[in-house]
Amino acid sequence: MTQTSKTQPRLTVWNEYRHELDNPRVSAHYPQGIHTVIADGLRGHGFAEVRTATLDEPEHGLSNAVLDGTDVLLWWGHKAHAEVSDEVAARVVARVLGGMGLIVLHSGHFSKPFRTLMGTGCDLKWREAGEKERLWVINPAHPIAQGVGEHITLEHEEMYGEHFDIPAPDELVFVSWFAGGEVFRSGCTFTRGSGKIFYFRPGHETYPTYHNPEIRRVIANAAHWAVPTASAPRSFGHRPAPLEAVLESR
Amino acid sequence: MTQTSKTQPRLTVWNEYRHELDNPRVSAHYPQGIHTVIADGLRGHGFAEVRTATLDEPEHGLSNAVLDGTDVLLWWGHKAHAEVSDEVAARVVARVLGGMGLIVLHSGHFSKPFRTLMGTGCDLKWREAGEKERLWVINPAHPIAQGVGEHITLEHEEMYGEHFDIPAPDELVFVSWFAGGEVFRSGCTFTRGSGKIFYFRPGHETYPTYHNPEIRRVIANAAHWAVPTASAPRSFGHRPAPLEAVLESR
Amino acid sequence: MTQTSKTQPRLTVWNEYRHELDNPRVSAHYPQGIHTVIADGLRGHGFAEVRTATLDEPEHGLSNAVLDGTDVLLWWGHKAHAEVSDEVAARVVARVLGGMGLIVLHSGHFSKPFRTLMGTGCDLKWREAGEKERLWVINPAHPIAQGVGEHITLEHEEMYGEHFDIPAPDELVFVSWFAGGEVFRSGCTFTRGSGKIFYFRPGHETYPTYHNPEIRRVIANAAHWAVPTASAPRSFGHRPAPLEAVLESR
Amino acid sequence: MTQTSKTQPRLTVWNEYRHELDNPRVSAHYPQGIHTVIADGLRGHGFAEVRTATLDEPEHGLSNAVLDGTDVLLWWGHKAHAEVSDEVAARVVARVLGGMGLIVLHSGHFSKPFRTLMGTGCDLKWREAGEKERLWVINPAHPIAQGVGEHITLEHEEMYGEHFDIPAPDELVFVSWFAGGEVFRSGCTFTRGSGKIFYFRPGHETYPTYHNPEIRRVIANAAHWAVPTASAPRSFGHRPAPLEAVLESR
Repeated sequence: MTQTSKTQPRLTVWNEYRHELDNPRVSAHYPQGIHTVIADGLRGHGFAEVRTATLDEPEHGLSNAVLDGTDVLLWWGHKAHAEVSDEVAARVVARVLGGMGLIVLHSGHFSKPFRTLMGTGCDLKWREAGEKERLWVINPAHPIAQGVGEHITLEHEEMYGEHFDIPAPDELVFVSWFAGGEVFRSGCTFTRGSGKIFYFRPGHETYPTYHNPEIRRVIANAAHWAVPTASAPRSFGHRPAPLEAVLESR
Repeated sequence: MTQTSKTQPRLTVWNEYRHELDNPRVSAHYPQGIHTVIADGLRGHGFAEVRTATLDEPEHGLSNAVLDGTDVLLWWGHKAHAEVSDEVAARVVARVLGGMGLIVLHSGHFSKPFRTLMGTGCDLKWREAGEKERLWVINPAHPIAQGVGEHITLEHEEMYGEHFDIPAPDELVFVSWFAGGEVFRSGCTFTRGSGKIFYFRPGHETYPTYHNPEIRRVIANAAHWAVPTASAPRSFGHRPAPLEAVLESR
Repeated sequence: MTQTSKTQPRLTVWNEYRHELDNPRVSAHYPQGIHTVIADGLRGHGFAEVRTATLDEPEHGLSNAVLDGTDVLLWWGHKAHAEVSDEVAARVVARVLGGMGLIVLHSGHFSKPFRTLMGTGCDLKWREAGEKERLWVINPAHPIAQGVGEHITLEHEEMYGEHFDIPAPDELVFVSWFAGGEVFRSGCTFTRGSGKIFYFRPGHETYPTYHNPEIRRVIANAAHWAVPTASAPRSFGHRPAPLEAVLESR
Repeated sequence: MTQTSKTQPRLTVWNEYRHELDNPRVSAHYPQGIHTVIADGLRGHGFAEVRTATLDEPEHGLSNAVLDGTDVLLWWGHKAHAEVSDEVAARVVARVLGGMGLIVLHSGHFSKPFRTLMGTGCDLKWREAGEKERLWVINPAHPIAQGVGEHITLEHEEMYGEHFDIPAPDELVFVSWFAGGEVFRSGCTFTRGSGKIFYFRPGHETYPTYHNPEIRRVIANAAHWAVPTASAPRSFGHRPAPLEAVLESR
């Protein structure tokens, strides 16, 4: 086959890691942080090279060296988006445009990298009522949906409702139903530059969502999907010599 | 009909207005500036409320008062993108997200507002060889193409070539063929927030492109298309009260 | 303005018109047929030229003469799809590809013209439980959503649930929430050939849906949107003479 | 990794196989038929299970047994589209909707399966002048473009020109430039039902295009991309029992 067996994709799970330290309702589910649970889920799906990084590490744990060794970055943040330095946010954006995959989870919709890559406000409606969410597969043939049933049910989640202020996604993989009456585009793909981006809605910190096997499967599928391909080269700029003879006629 | 007869759309044509002042090859075609020629073209297509604005006016001519009176903004810039203040660029972006139409012309691909709205680098290949460009209509049913033939030929233009580093457009209306061997997605639509955006490639300053009747027609069509509709409301934020009864089960 | 004041669009509302004749629960809402109520709604939104056609008329009321005088065709059918002749179905498809607008309502998802134009099975899940449907606006800037609130609530409707076996729509305007737990892409646009197509989900025959003012507004918006534009010409076939000199080198 | 090592994808290359038998200019390039050269190219990219089928075999070589053993079907046809039986064409369409990948080559744009799956006329402009074609990569991050340069040059090919009467593709991977002045959307992806479809333009029978290493690479990439995934299940029909309690209120 053309595709030679890939070396192991290298994943980095980034987490704000604040709620877990000051809210017992969160640490009950994620005593070592959301990132460790997501990372464990990825390892359970066969990814061997999974590291984590958090906001309060130097450079938020996202030095150029770390990003050099990252094929796909996963991002969870909520209340400290503003504390992510503009420099690191710009670095992440540049890496994505250069090909690094990016999986934005839940409240990461308001993170600096996602908003910059989308170019829109990325706002939405929300409610914390512990209500039922059901994620319906809209695009069953998409690799991110493989191995999932027709829908995934989460008994208790935060509600996110439309309108979700994003560009029309390239592909719509999931739409959520909420008991309280709203719907939401829960699984959306985008390509920006050479990078593949997947936004995946579930994962409020007060619920055990990232322990759910189906959610873990979707995240693993997405990580696989977002690995950069040996894409065609992109080059830009001045091309003084035409490829074909051009009559200079100015 | 549901659509009541609209009041006249109010257009603002923004131009960097530098080349015309220091390059006789440019002022030969545009003695009063590219903006005045584009504005004349729009008036010739029946738009009654067309104003212009330029970089060196206070606030670049784009005060809040001016933007309050603008339904669609047209943008031509080239060598002084960096001189557009971040404040005015952000103001334009915010207006577009709020519904103002935006038509980005030629080298405006590198303008601050366009790059911010796209979230990508917006780079491309280019060559100044006075070569022939032929814009093919890819989407003949699109309102921006109405009244145009199967293609538009420009005898002398600058070449722009793929890869054009933009998100996949919502709709692809034109693709250009260049004598020197390249192709380019020349007419692309995007919706960002409530605003409609059209990128239209032709219009290098050393050619009389904006005098061309077909190019003028496309720009007029685009201005019409980009007028904000009385769209459905968008609201965001906390919705503590569910629309339906929700079992509080946390 | 480029767009000269259009002559009145000519609309034809097609209805199977069977349920109304044999089911009192249907005729209670639509004593003269669903088509007459939809037509009244369109007239109430200012369309002056609205005619109707039904299955049991000669040529199902869709002679070439009628279609010659139709800018936009609206289609409601349910239990007699198979009785639509292949000839008339093919005639409708050809007209749409040639530019006629088509609005497919509710159970029309299984009609011959829609299935042929989509190329897919167009199947879905369904349930008749008189349950609540809430249609959320996903694309607030779309002209089909103008004048509508953030959502439309129908107290009693048939449920349609994903997966809806259609090609990815060009634009997704509405997504429905159902009380019973499903979601559905309720408002979808497609362009096929020169024709604009809008699929709009609501309208089960045992509910008074087409009397609802918001539903009527959406249908009127869609009729307006689907009117053919004076599009760019499309031509096909042998082009022995190249536009540019070609070195014949075989 | 989630994706277990797949068994070898099973490919079937279908060819009309008529030109090669009666036109020495074709048999000069393809003495055993276009299908054998395409199949060799696929084997050269590591596909171990590649079979061929041709029009004049019983059931055109596409019995249910053969299709049961086909993950991706490649299709080349030109002058005998009408001789493909409706039954076999419908069988192929049903398989694609059920998940089988389909790669449609060159003049296959007018084949029964492709036209049925698209729902449009699929017409285009054409010219046989042995002119140069240059395929530009529009979507460098797409797996079908991997390993390819910025463009592929074919010194002599038939011209296909816009307008190409297809639905807007899900993804646009290549656009062709022709020496004679036209452009064409040369590499287009579509999903229909559970099946992935790739249309790839080059390959007129009088040129040695399928011997070209870059063209062979693209076809191999596409075959890999089109392999059905273990997609989420799709089910349809009556769902009398709601997932959530619904107030029966008719």
